[in-house]
Amino acid sequence: MRHFFSTNQLTTEEIYQWLETAEAYRTGKTSWPKLDNQFVANLFFEPSTRTKMSFVVAQRKLGMDVLDFHTETSSMKKGESLYDTAKTFESIGANLLVIRHESDDWFNELDKKLSIPIINAGSGKTEHPTQCMLDLLTIYQEFGRIEDLEIAIVGDLKHSRVARTNALSLQRLGAKVYLSAPEGFEDESLNLPYLSIDEATEHMDVIMLLRVQHERHIVQSKTENYLNRAGLTKNREKKMKPHAIILHPAPVNRGVEIDSELVECNRSRIFKQMENGVYARMAVMTHVLQEWGKI
Amino acid sequence: MRHFFSTNQLTTEEIYQWLETAEAYRTGKTSWPKLDNQFVANLFFEPSTRTKMSFVVAQRKLGMDVLDFHTETSSMKKGESLYDTAKTFESIGANLLVIRHESDDWFNELDKKLSIPIINAGSGKTEHPTQCMLDLLTIYQEFGRIEDLEIAIVGDLKHSRVARTNALSLQRLGAKVYLSAPEGFEDESLNLPYLSIDEATEHMDVIMLLRVQHERHIVQSKTENYLNRAGLTKNREKKMKPHAIILHPAPVNRGVEIDSELVECNRSRIFKQMENGVYARMAVMTHVLQEWGKI
Amino acid sequence: MRHFFSTNQLTTEEIYQWLETAEAYRTGKTSWPKLDNQFVANLFFEPSTRTKMSFVVAQRKLGMDVLDFHTETSSMKKGESLYDTAKTFESIGANLLVIRHESDDWFNELDKKLSIPIINAGSGKTEHPTQCMLDLLTIYQEFGRIEDLEIAIVGDLKHSRVARTNALSLQRLGAKVYLSAPEGFEDESLNLPYLSIDEATEHMDVIMLLRVQHERHIVQSKTENYLNRAGLTKNREKKMKPHAIILHPAPVNRGVEIDSELVECNRSRIFKQMENGVYARMAVMTHVLQEWGKI
Repeated sequence: MRHFFSTNQLTTEEIYQWLETAEAYRTGKTSWPKLDNQFVANLFFEPSTRTKMSFVVAQRKLGMDVLDFHTETSSMKKGESLYDTAKTFESIGANLLVIRHESDDWFNELDKKLSIPIINAGSGKTEHPTQCMLDLLTIYQEFGRIEDLEIAIVGDLKHSRVARTNALSLQRLGAKVYLSAPEGFEDESLNLPYLSIDEATEHMDVIMLLRVQHERHIVQSKTENYLNRAGLTKNREKKMKPHAIILHPAPVNRGVEIDSELVECNRSRIFKQMENGVYARMAVMTHVLQEWGKI
Repeated sequence: MRHFFSTNQLTTEEIYQWLETAEAYRTGKTSWPKLDNQFVANLFFEPSTRTKMSFVVAQRKLGMDVLDFHTETSSMKKGESLYDTAKTFESIGANLLVIRHESDDWFNELDKKLSIPIINAGSGKTEHPTQCMLDLLTIYQEFGRIEDLEIAIVGDLKHSRVARTNALSLQRLGAKVYLSAPEGFEDESLNLPYLSIDEATEHMDVIMLLRVQHERHIVQSKTENYLNRAGLTKNREKKMKPHAIILHPAPVNRGVEIDSELVECNRSRIFKQMENGVYARMAVMTHVLQEWGKI
Repeated sequence: MRHFFSTNQLTTEEIYQWLETAEAYRTGKTSWPKLDNQFVANLFFEPSTRTKMSFVVAQRKLGMDVLDFHTETSSMKKGESLYDTAKTFESIGANLLVIRHESDDWFNELDKKLSIPIINAGSGKTEHPTQCMLDLLTIYQEFGRIEDLEIAIVGDLKHSRVARTNALSLQRLGAKVYLSAPEGFEDESLNLPYLSIDEATEHMDVIMLLRVQHERHIVQSKTENYLNRAGLTKNREKKMKPHAIILHPAPVNRGVEIDSELVECNRSRIFKQMENGVYARMAVMTHVLQEWGKI
């Protein structure tokens, strides 16, 4: 029985299977299980609107009872460890934990210590596997495959947990993955070819923009003229391949990573990603709970 | 299909119709629809207990699933626009948005841009239409009409969105509306006759007190001796007409706008207003959702 | 009809009856009532994870609709009194209030003024009756009785509301209650015999550890070497009676009140207490609502 800490835990077959489940839920082809007597606790130790709300909608659609944890008003202020908090929620009856925490490897502190499954909703700068699943779902919906697609991950690679998670998963699924970042935003830990922003926009099937993570920068990086230097301008968009699409995990810094007018252009799947997020998370939760015999 | 940004959008016939719906819900004469698979997101960018909780109770009574948005822990901290936040909630599946925001005209930013209805739960210093509906309901319950009633809106007119919304709606419904405010609290944009606090309390059918909105004052206004200068003292209450009633949108500054002992006196409808608020909001939401074909 | 402000309001027969209800709910021997159209408001004016979440799980299991009140974003910031807040929740439809507040006697402000029952979830340094009920439940489960057990309450007596509530209730139920505290942490208002930490750990049936309440200390007490001076070390645990158990209301300061390795040792009932808390609170709420004719 596995927690869901990383997409690396899944075989490529499993990834496709989970994506199929998500798509079947979205289109109404399959009905989802009703989990009316299950409690889920969302433990978010970092600010989040979209991920947290996406999980809540997914959980409520599944009929789960949602325990909403506010770090500001909680005992964590009194210095309690993540393990003790998680164990508390298990003790009071949570059947599932969804955790976001600023630590890069908080899940090691919890692995094999609880009798309920845990889903990673974001771990420091390392992993964001449900974001990965919804990005994969969006690409898969569009092209019917991941294999052989040319995909560039573009922007603030250095501070992104999305980049790392997605690069690895896309590669495993057979995509050709490239990186593009302005000076100072590169990620040396990823062994992938770099493209200029112009090369990326002209040649790729998918442009996966990253948010400039001002809040994770230790030294404030210069984002003056970022759009022209490294972002998706209207001129660059015009040179994209006819079928190419734009992704962004949001929230978007309009006019920084992307020209504001392009956020809802024909190529953009940015709000589609959010819609997909709900169904991807429903699929993740039902598969995980199934493995644990809770469905 | 209309959002509900202002009572000005409703004809006087519609206002009465919505009030009748609210009253029928309250008395149990009519059962309300069950909206079991509908999500509503409450986006409150200003502190609120009563309005927000009133909406939540109304929504839960209607069977809706409530998404609770906390500005302090949200991406708005990351600089996201109201439009992007609203669009995000639409994308993840919200069927209705209820928004309070400090901007005077935030709804212009959203109008005609979303495929789901929006209800204004307070906009800067301009509008608070569901408060207006509950105030109208309270008066209508009492007198069986609005027409020809003499009503004074009393107090911190300058910083009140309630005053503006109510003055206009009451006039349209045929009431004779007067204002009363101590020096420095007048609202020059409202073209209505002023009364002294003594004239108001002696001659009106309804005294509609306003909260001193300390939190919206730029220069702190002097509220020393406010009660004697401009509030409802026990002496003034004694001179009110036999059938006259007292309203206040709450929270009350006891001993400022009104003598603390009068908050629950026979004439006071202050806690009645809160009860009515739930049913008024249920009526607003069901009428709006009906127009949008969601019921 | 009674609120539940203190276990002192219950006869010893009632205490046992409520414990039996809790245990019957926990074991599934009795099914609990479904309170599907009841609203409960949790008004917590002090940080809390475990107590609040425990109440929420208990309330949701009972089918109640939960109104979650955030002091940070509420009108209390605007200076509203506890009474006005409580009355507001009553007006908008709450059928039950659960309140935690830093005042020692906030319940006096509310007694006999509302038409709905109130449960004390913590009052300043005086009372925490639902914690007491879950502690009693845990001891009763273990020994089948409270009478004649030797129980030491150990630690930061001075700042603990748990100590006070528990000492009195345990005495009334026939236990022999002792205290143990390092210098400066004693509570002079409790007229009970003191033991050294070594005497306590060697001779008692139950060691009831208290959390060092740093957040309530006016002068920061010295907790250097607290574990050795006054806490449960591994050496002390070895000398405990074979059947003796360890309680702690949590959150635990690991390495302060208790050696971190003992938190989940065989004698520890710390996480069991949390599980019991849910059922104890379900029992409290159903008994209170029954008295008020709401079930």
